[in-house]
Amino acid sequence: MEDKVKILDTTLRDGTQGEGISLTVEDKLNIAKRLDTLGISYIEGGWPGSNHKDIEFFIRARNLKLKHAEITAFGSTRRKNIYAEHDVNLLKLLDIGVKTVAIFGKSWDFQVYTAIQTTLEENLSMIYDTIRFLKHKGLRVIYDAEHFFDGYKSNSAYALSTVRTAYEAGADWIVLCDTNGGAIPHEIASIVTFVKNEIPCPLGIHAHNDCELAVANTLAAVSAGATQVQGTINGYGERCGNANLISVIPNLQLKLHYPIVTKEQLAKLTDTARFVSEITNMPMPINQPYAGRAAFAHKGGIHVSAILRDASTYEHITPELVGNRQRVIVSELSGQSNLVFKAQELGLELQANNSNTKLLIERVKELENQGYQFDGADAALELLIRSMNGDLEEILNLESYKITVVKVVDQPILSEAVVKVKVQGRSVYNVAEGNGPLNALDNALRKCLMEQYPSLKTIHLSDYKVRVLDDKDGTATKVRVIVEFSDKKNTWSTVGVSENIIEASWQALCDSIRYALLDVKPSDSKLHLVELDESVGLINH
Amino acid sequence: MEDKVKILDTTLRDGTQGEGISLTVEDKLNIAKRLDTLGISYIEGGWPGSNHKDIEFFIRARNLKLKHAEITAFGSTRRKNIYAEHDVNLLKLLDIGVKTVAIFGKSWDFQVYTAIQTTLEENLSMIYDTIRFLKHKGLRVIYDAEHFFDGYKSNSAYALSTVRTAYEAGADWIVLCDTNGGAIPHEIASIVTFVKNEIPCPLGIHAHNDCELAVANTLAAVSAGATQVQGTINGYGERCGNANLISVIPNLQLKLHYPIVTKEQLAKLTDTARFVSEITNMPMPINQPYAGRAAFAHKGGIHVSAILRDASTYEHITPELVGNRQRVIVSELSGQSNLVFKAQELGLELQANNSNTKLLIERVKELENQGYQFDGADAALELLIRSMNGDLEEILNLESYKITVVKVVDQPILSEAVVKVKVQGRSVYNVAEGNGPLNALDNALRKCLMEQYPSLKTIHLSDYKVRVLDDKDGTATKVRVIVEFSDKKNTWSTVGVSENIIEASWQALCDSIRYALLDVKPSDSKLHLVELDESVGLINH
Repeated sequence: MEDKVKILDTTLRDGTQGEGISLTVEDKLNIAKRLDTLGISYIEGGWPGSNHKDIEFFIRARNLKLKHAEITAFGSTRRKNIYAEHDVNLLKLLDIGVKTVAIFGKSWDFQVYTAIQTTLEENLSMIYDTIRFLKHKGLRVIYDAEHFFDGYKSNSAYALSTVRTAYEAGADWIVLCDTNGGAIPHEIASIVTFVKNEIPCPLGIHAHNDCELAVANTLAAVSAGATQVQGTINGYGERCGNANLISVIPNLQLKLHYPIVTKEQLAKLTDTARFVSEITNMPMPINQPYAGRAAFAHKGGIHVSAILRDASTYEHITPELVGNRQRVIVSELSGQSNLVFKAQELGLELQANNSNTKLLIERVKELENQGYQFDGADAALELLIRSMNGDLEEILNLESYKITVVKVVDQPILSEAVVKVKVQGRSVYNVAEGNGPLNALDNALRKCLMEQYPSLKTIHLSDYKVRVLDDKDGTATKVRVIVEFSDKKNTWSTVGVSENIIEASWQALCDSIRYALLDVKPSDSKLHLVELDESVGLINH
Repeated sequence: MEDKVKILDTTLRDGTQGEGISLTVEDKLNIAKRLDTLGISYIEGGWPGSNHKDIEFFIRARNLKLKHAEITAFGSTRRKNIYAEHDVNLLKLLDIGVKTVAIFGKSWDFQVYTAIQTTLEENLSMIYDTIRFLKHKGLRVIYDAEHFFDGYKSNSAYALSTVRTAYEAGADWIVLCDTNGGAIPHEIASIVTFVKNEIPCPLGIHAHNDCELAVANTLAAVSAGATQVQGTINGYGERCGNANLISVIPNLQLKLHYPIVTKEQLAKLTDTARFVSEITNMPMPINQPYAGRAAFAHKGGIHVSAILRDASTYEHITPELVGNRQRVIVSELSGQSNLVFKAQELGLELQANNSNTKLLIERVKELENQGYQFDGADAALELLIRSMNGDLEEILNLESYKITVVKVVDQPILSEAVVKVKVQGRSVYNVAEGNGPLNALDNALRKCLMEQYPSLKTIHLSDYKVRVLDDKDGTATKVRVIVEFSDKKNTWSTVGVSENIIEASWQALCDSIRYALLDVKPSDSKLHLVELDESVGLINH
């Protein structure tokens, strides 16, 4: 019997059934390496019977040199009315050289009739023959009882006979699956308890999130005696996804006190979640439990003044345990303590109950009332604090801009910006084209600044959000633009508000450029530019 | 005793503590109206003691004419060492004219010492005096026992004494709050059961999602006897958010069989979730349970062929129960049936297995692939279907447009649009100014059309949304613009996609105008215009 709870990660198999998720073999190998450092026991790499990409993954994964994890392959019970040893998909499982396989089969009488269209007896034989065949070949076999909970609710005797058959055929684990995600925790707990009393085989749980209960259902199953947990990083998976291991692992470890991973591995949780989010190109919700950027972020003034006294007043765990950190957000809801804390975080000086600080809070409230948003735009706040502190050198002053967008039918659109600014007191005048008006403005403004600030070459616009603000008087409609810029190391956001989308964009753009140039000294000589160009390649495109 | 489970929505109060969420008074009023149609019992509108915007909300909310919901205000127990009747924040609660208030107070001894820095006895007096004062003034009082579960785990006798005090002071409800979101379902169940046996007052639950368990904790509390559920739409709220009512409501109703809302109200669930997501400008995760675009989307080949035989093979409920719909991500066959269904809904003819229908599906797929979205833009889909059916008269053809936006420092911004279009085959050329480039385009285009289509005077742009689409290949970034137009009776939306925001806006704008003019005959005579002008006043500004 297995006593320790083990994790099977199926991000690379069930996770890729999620809409919008598509991984290359290289992606899969990179994710597998990260899962290994997180301390995962089994990595379900794919279904060799379903596509060639998965076969290639298993072949290349042999060279991964994993420390903890074992690569496992997924497959189905044999097809109806043939011998297991004639089933090509089962033979493929033998070919790829894994030691553990996960085999799914039917538990629900309705599914046997509807989906595979055979008899209840043949389905039992399919389960028995398949597991027996694979055990004879020396493999460890995890049996995934698909739709087990629905099957149990429909015909408990038959559902139980399917997993008893799997046990008798030699399955090493029996994993009860809530395939449609429709079960609730108390059902899961009572059904797992029942099966555990009937069948002396280690049990596992595979939950889906269609009721937003996959994590709770997983905990309920473990509390009832399941010792294998299947899930995916960030909960990726078909429809509403699978049980999110990024929540399951710390819940089991920190709340239910199961020793799942080491302390060092747990501290890699946030990084792993963000890494997989980057690779899958699925932006992580900022409020994702444990790993999200806002998971330990505080906004309300009362909360902030309390966490400054003791973080446990509004934090259920120390964020560093899972590799995350505390953040304080400044908004109209927050008071002085948020601002003072934020200033410290930004390395700026600001004292509570100081007249400058009170002015600053008034200014933040006034700007937010006009539609500005500092929440999520730390760079804009830093500029504001510095400017109120007299600690912001104004390197950039607008004289004028002019945007022209011309379209003539059947011809490409022209977007052109003319920008005239004072840079370090000197008028500079430039024109540039772009993909759209903001891009043209960005290009023209950079042309004005590039000579004195060649480091601007390394930053780029990485996101752009526009929101129409309803004016309470119902007269003019304002637009709020938030732009996000990145360089190789950092990402920052600034905000602009105007009735005119171009002007709002311009404000946000200028502030992002100002932020990028904080503490950057202007470079005056052309010679210097050439040196930079040759030495670090910053100038040329 | 309250027997029926009632919902208190706190999207407008606790929801706005979420990072990136900032609502105008107008936004709040609009959300309140939608919550009412969903059948919510209490709408917690804000904290009048914390900011002026919330006071304005309560004053304007008096005119909302809600059918089911009651607007409630939030506040704190009185400050330490003063009389309740001298506490300005409590007096503000009386001023704004609500009948129900939610008052929070401390249950956790540690919080009494650390956060409010007073004695345990004074905290009990603060609770008692506040509730007594408000009850004397005739209000219904919901008492929110902040940090109740942490308090109970730390000092159960004291935690219990706080809620007993609230009960003795006359509280109508006692809501047990898992403020830090660190509790797990079996703790919630046993603590709620314990309190229920001790205190004969209706209980409620307020859960946070820091362990991804807020929905499960809410269900556990209701199963243990709580009859008030607090949560927010889409789970917005501080840190990882609050219990997501979009999951809680259908779970209670469809899984635990509590009669929470009517069948018709439940069918508004998805629309409400998407509406609030749009207003907050927080993109909804596609895999959000019940309401997400992928919540009932099927990708795997085996699953798709099974659901075509019987949807319950891979769907835990019928999506229409919550106003969502099934989607098949790969199958052309099911794509057809969706489109045929939609066309019927719009009153248009479209037959399955017809070559035109197949072409239309290809076109929809191609456009969605480019970033267009027909989901939520029925007018755009109707134009597309009509155009493929040869049932769309092209009244409007672009020849050229030119947008100029000029800003000179210290002067007002000029936004000008020149538009040249063929209207009914005749070239028309006009120029107009506007508040911004889109407004100028709209004005110039209308000038071109007004003579032949005077009814355009009655429509106006009512919303404008911009979203940057991440290109998977990382090449060019596209922008999707959705514009919403309204006349006195209807509201419709159309969509445009381009690398250029002006061009995307132009596409959406033209389509909205085309839609407005469907089945409108052009008016040729100046005489007719004058008649209209005099009779219904449509022409003049």
